[in-house]
Amino acid sequence: MLFEITKTDEQSKARRGKLFLPNGIVETPVFMPVGTQGTVKTITPKELNELDVEIIVCNTYHLYLRPGTEVIAAGGGLSKFIGWHKPILTDSGGYQIYSLHALRKITNEGVEFQSHIDGSIHFFTPESVVAIQEKFQSDIAMCLDICPPYPATYEEAQNATKLTLTWAERAKKVQKSNTILFGIIQGATYPDLRKYSAQETVNLGFSGYAIGGLCLGEPSDVTYEMIDTVRNYIPTNVPCYLMGAGYPEDIVEAVKRGVDMFDCVLPTRNGRTGTAFCSFGRLTIRNSQYTYDFSPLDPNCNCYTCRNFSRAYLRHLFIVNEVLGPKLLTLHNLHFFVNLIKEIRRHIDEGDFTSWANEFINRYSSKNNSK
Amino acid sequence: MLFEITKTDEQSKARRGKLFLPNGIVETPVFMPVGTQGTVKTITPKELNELDVEIIVCNTYHLYLRPGTEVIAAGGGLSKFIGWHKPILTDSGGYQIYSLHALRKITNEGVEFQSHIDGSIHFFTPESVVAIQEKFQSDIAMCLDICPPYPATYEEAQNATKLTLTWAERAKKVQKSNTILFGIIQGATYPDLRKYSAQETVNLGFSGYAIGGLCLGEPSDVTYEMIDTVRNYIPTNVPCYLMGAGYPEDIVEAVKRGVDMFDCVLPTRNGRTGTAFCSFGRLTIRNSQYTYDFSPLDPNCNCYTCRNFSRAYLRHLFIVNEVLGPKLLTLHNLHFFVNLIKEIRRHIDEGDFTSWANEFINRYSSKNNSK
Repeated sequence: MLFEITKTDEQSKARRGKLFLPNGIVETPVFMPVGTQGTVKTITPKELNELDVEIIVCNTYHLYLRPGTEVIAAGGGLSKFIGWHKPILTDSGGYQIYSLHALRKITNEGVEFQSHIDGSIHFFTPESVVAIQEKFQSDIAMCLDICPPYPATYEEAQNATKLTLTWAERAKKVQKSNTILFGIIQGATYPDLRKYSAQETVNLGFSGYAIGGLCLGEPSDVTYEMIDTVRNYIPTNVPCYLMGAGYPEDIVEAVKRGVDMFDCVLPTRNGRTGTAFCSFGRLTIRNSQYTYDFSPLDPNCNCYTCRNFSRAYLRHLFIVNEVLGPKLLTLHNLHFFVNLIKEIRRHIDEGDFTSWANEFINRYSSKNNSK
Repeated sequence: MLFEITKTDEQSKARRGKLFLPNGIVETPVFMPVGTQGTVKTITPKELNELDVEIIVCNTYHLYLRPGTEVIAAGGGLSKFIGWHKPILTDSGGYQIYSLHALRKITNEGVEFQSHIDGSIHFFTPESVVAIQEKFQSDIAMCLDICPPYPATYEEAQNATKLTLTWAERAKKVQKSNTILFGIIQGATYPDLRKYSAQETVNLGFSGYAIGGLCLGEPSDVTYEMIDTVRNYIPTNVPCYLMGAGYPEDIVEAVKRGVDMFDCVLPTRNGRTGTAFCSFGRLTIRNSQYTYDFSPLDPNCNCYTCRNFSRAYLRHLFIVNEVLGPKLLTLHNLHFFVNLIKEIRRHIDEGDFTSWANEFINRYSSKNNSK
């Protein structure tokens, strides 16, 4: 058994569950920090453990290029290689091929791309991407998909959806029996394509389903509408993963709609650039108003950063380009996201999730509020 | 009482001792990691504690410029400001004014320099530098000195020595009674200047004495000769600090000659650039020979890095520019230096320091051996 649902909310589609993965059990809903190149930037595995992180996301495209699939395989798989002895989900790399402008040509057979590092030419097929992730011994592998940027025309979205489906079928055929492989639902912002993609992907019968191609800059109500559309066609007894989400309010809204898994670069990327997620909204640490501010980032937070350092010191670290600054803000932000998930879990367990979620969304808007 | 000697070696000038400082007791000999801008680069205070670091060195020049003396004073002093609740020694900044090419003019009154950050003009006097460090509440403050680069002509060295002495006298006059202020002995590589500087500085009566102007690229035997020369004129009942040392073999040689305190950027800087200090010498982690090497950096080391990560993974982190690489090598290198000091202490305690030191120096040459 891969997934067990332990509690269902009565007023929404929110639920609590457990994922039974080769490297450990993961409670859901879960937030998965991003460790693209085999490290959650600036953070040690020990610190991830102390933060109660249960699973991280690494990237097939990046790790295939460096250090290379064979190095990771020879090192005993990705978890062992990077010293993180808990589950890892690997993204297939389709998104990176677009976002890093590596794309050269998509054919029915696969995708030709150019390394963003040295310009060398490579070719991914749905089959090769499964094989790479199997060599990584990823706890959860993802199908190679086509994720057009936002906004996409109907025709682009339709073509991407259809080819993603063909590729999903091919991936399914070659996967080893013990590989946990998730299908990815595309369809951009078009409800009929989303419905089609969801139905057909589910027909192929994957261990779990990811909603791809969202959180790319479209308005929030469109994101939520697409989740609602898709969710109706995903069986309730398998895990549902919203890729690339998101802002705290997006996570809460998606949990309400029955999403179990999340990954996002926000806590790590914003940590590195000097923005802290706090109980009152976002805080930009470089602002001169913090020069003499000896209070913690967030007085309501008990993370290592907030227990030990002041805004004035953190600002100093950013101003003088000391890496401890990005690191301490990343730690704080990861703590914030992990804690948000803990709170979501607690309210589902206690049966008051919906009222709490509404209150949270009214109170908290991290997108528009930067202090 | 500032300094207590707890054990003296019978065959050398090596000794064990304790420094009683406002923020804690420090055992000697001691290695002080460098945290120039108020952070030991890439390392948290928690990790410094786990490494058994007892005292760090920060830099007056850098911290005066950013975040500024008043910010640190308002934050309750440097230890509190940076979240490091153990002793701090602050260097006076004379060396930085040279090494960062900030120097504009030295007069009898003081030194005019240009900020390496924004080009603004500043003036340090022996008095102002003591006052700044008192505002920092440094556990140990250093006199403003003049440290000519190596090689220096006799005339340059003589002028620097004389002015350093005058400034030491002025610093002594303005220091508060509870400030622990160290005098700095200059004289470059000229024995008569070293003798003169040592005698006259000691006559002024400081809490401790630093040997400055060495470890600047001169041959090792010259370094050791200068230490021998100077050491004869420093009272045995006060701490002796060799500034900027050094390579492991330099530290052992200096302990033999009666030096108690060391600071050096080697473990941190080399860690960042990818060189590890190991029991067998130095290792350059970027080398392609480590691509498939799944053994730890140093099989004889039990630091966090060596217990959890392979050379292949560490190499990967450096190749893909992930800051975890520099961080894990810095951790390892600091552990190596702290452990070297622990071993030195143990052998002094057990009475076999001299034979151990000779064996170590024959066995270990970190300068010439890079694997």
